[in-house]
Amino acid sequence: MKKIINDPNQVVQDMVEGLVASSPNDIKQLPGTTAVVKTDAPNANKVGLVSGGGSGHEPAHAGYVGKGMLDAAVVGEVFTSPTPDQVFEAIKAVDSGAGVLLIIKNYTGDVLNFEMAAELAEAEGIRVEKVIVNDDIAVEESSSTTGRRGIAGTVFVHKMAGAKAEQRGTLEEVKAVAAKAATNVRSMGMALTPCTVPAAGTPSFQLDENEMEIGIGIHGEAGIERKVISTADDVAAELTGKILEDFDFTGDVAVMVNGLGSTPEMELYIVNKKVQAILAEKGLNVYKTFVGEYMTSLEMAGCSVTLLNLDDELKELLDVASDAPAFRS
Amino acid sequence: MKKIINDPNQVVQDMVEGLVASSPNDIKQLPGTTAVVKTDAPNANKVGLVSGGGSGHEPAHAGYVGKGMLDAAVVGEVFTSPTPDQVFEAIKAVDSGAGVLLIIKNYTGDVLNFEMAAELAEAEGIRVEKVIVNDDIAVEESSSTTGRRGIAGTVFVHKMAGAKAEQRGTLEEVKAVAAKAATNVRSMGMALTPCTVPAAGTPSFQLDENEMEIGIGIHGEAGIERKVISTADDVAAELTGKILEDFDFTGDVAVMVNGLGSTPEMELYIVNKKVQAILAEKGLNVYKTFVGEYMTSLEMAGCSVTLLNLDDELKELLDVASDAPAFRS
Repeated sequence: MKKIINDPNQVVQDMVEGLVASSPNDIKQLPGTTAVVKTDAPNANKVGLVSGGGSGHEPAHAGYVGKGMLDAAVVGEVFTSPTPDQVFEAIKAVDSGAGVLLIIKNYTGDVLNFEMAAELAEAEGIRVEKVIVNDDIAVEESSSTTGRRGIAGTVFVHKMAGAKAEQRGTLEEVKAVAAKAATNVRSMGMALTPCTVPAAGTPSFQLDENEMEIGIGIHGEAGIERKVISTADDVAAELTGKILEDFDFTGDVAVMVNGLGSTPEMELYIVNKKVQAILAEKGLNVYKTFVGEYMTSLEMAGCSVTLLNLDDELKELLDVASDAPAFRS
Repeated sequence: MKKIINDPNQVVQDMVEGLVASSPNDIKQLPGTTAVVKTDAPNANKVGLVSGGGSGHEPAHAGYVGKGMLDAAVVGEVFTSPTPDQVFEAIKAVDSGAGVLLIIKNYTGDVLNFEMAAELAEAEGIRVEKVIVNDDIAVEESSSTTGRRGIAGTVFVHKMAGAKAEQRGTLEEVKAVAAKAATNVRSMGMALTPCTVPAAGTPSFQLDENEMEIGIGIHGEAGIERKVISTADDVAAELTGKILEDFDFTGDVAVMVNGLGSTPEMELYIVNKKVQAILAEKGLNVYKTFVGEYMTSLEMAGCSVTLLNLDDELKELLDVASDAPAFRS
């Protein structure tokens, strides 16, 4: 295991401290937790937005804490859900009285723990709603989910909810746009290499030098097909093609070509070239494209493609300014 | 070699097309070249800013093309200088009559080719100035440089020059702030793994499973010391310590903890935690911190630390808005 870390069992605490130290005016660590919260939260009359989950997916989710995006990200151990009490603390920290929306990637642990936190908060009189994101079309069920997994499309859900909350939408309105984004987003990923959880020390699976895995999850979950590495064009065509089969994209689309951790930006742009060509061929207008690392899996090599179907409301929200470090727009 | 590419000899052309396709309203490819230019260049009365160099360092430099940063980035083959005629075309494309500043990382090939381009442009009556960046303190000479190498500190030079040019500084004024930033910036890097140039197909060097290399270059150049992997704190202390020995930082500083390609953001934040602690101990005030991938070396694992000494002018310029995709501020 080659990593630049101190104690493998202390990576999350170290990371959160280093993250907060990078933007001390904008974000803070909630005492006694590994939740990262906007320093000026709660904002008067604004719905609070909380997401989070296991760490190892940086910049998700703490990099999306900022004006126009999240108010708090609750950071669990690597690939492990944060505990209900940590989520509860974050909810309390961001509630202005306007209520709190939880944006949850669809993993059993996350869903359970965020729901338990919601119950604790509701018992204290805080209004809490939730939206579950399950954009990964690769598998219908997995060892860690009931239903599809939530992956990079979650970032678009953050963005839409964040923009609506910034405009002082009500809790119901913010939930509605988040749910609309979640309903209209699809993703699929592939990997060339596995990744190694620091505390484990060895990779979660093995791939031969000439192999890639299609439909991989972001926690090293098995994909749906292992095959010989083909070209970037083939990879783009397979991922994009499956997404287009799964959902009837009708409007303008937002595109995300996401690196899983160690894939050079050069390769992501090469994939994007083909994705754009495929969408043009289908007559789909691309409203905005995002290429980079948005939802990673430690140092996994690979990428995912995400398409979001946009109506006028979602286009307008996508254009609202955000100053979250990992999603300035 | 595990890469998501098509033809290894076509990666740069594919990448540039995919990059331009991601932001077609903001950037364009200069016909017949692999130069990436702002669509609205030249801007009236604005000094044009051109940088570039070999590719493989993405987002450097094409990700820094945007309002408040560069007007053009000339993209060479992987780790290979762009040709003088490509640079010349970029200079012509961005000159508004206010002149053009070339920001060049200190490698013999880049310096020669950018200087030849400058001569071609001057022969056509375009005023051209240049600033050479040599922020890497690891080696005083190398196989590809006379003097120190230019690495991640170049991004700060882009930023300062870009801000001053946006404020419609004269060519002399823009050159002066770029030169001031170049004089006041120091960097040093380390690697856990080498990287593989697509057309070569094999890594440029080997490191054992327990080894790291300190003082590495961004083209797989040898470092100054190979040793057993230590902790993130040790790495941060060694890089930061050597930088602080090399330059007398007196004012506020800007910090960049830069990933070389495949290092998870988690690890960069862990390094940043220690860097900030060291600077606090020295009584140096950190004005702004940047953690992420700014100047990479394909899929190399490792990081670099950059410190920039700031006076009031540089602080003000650092705060000027930029909308370059890789450096929004």
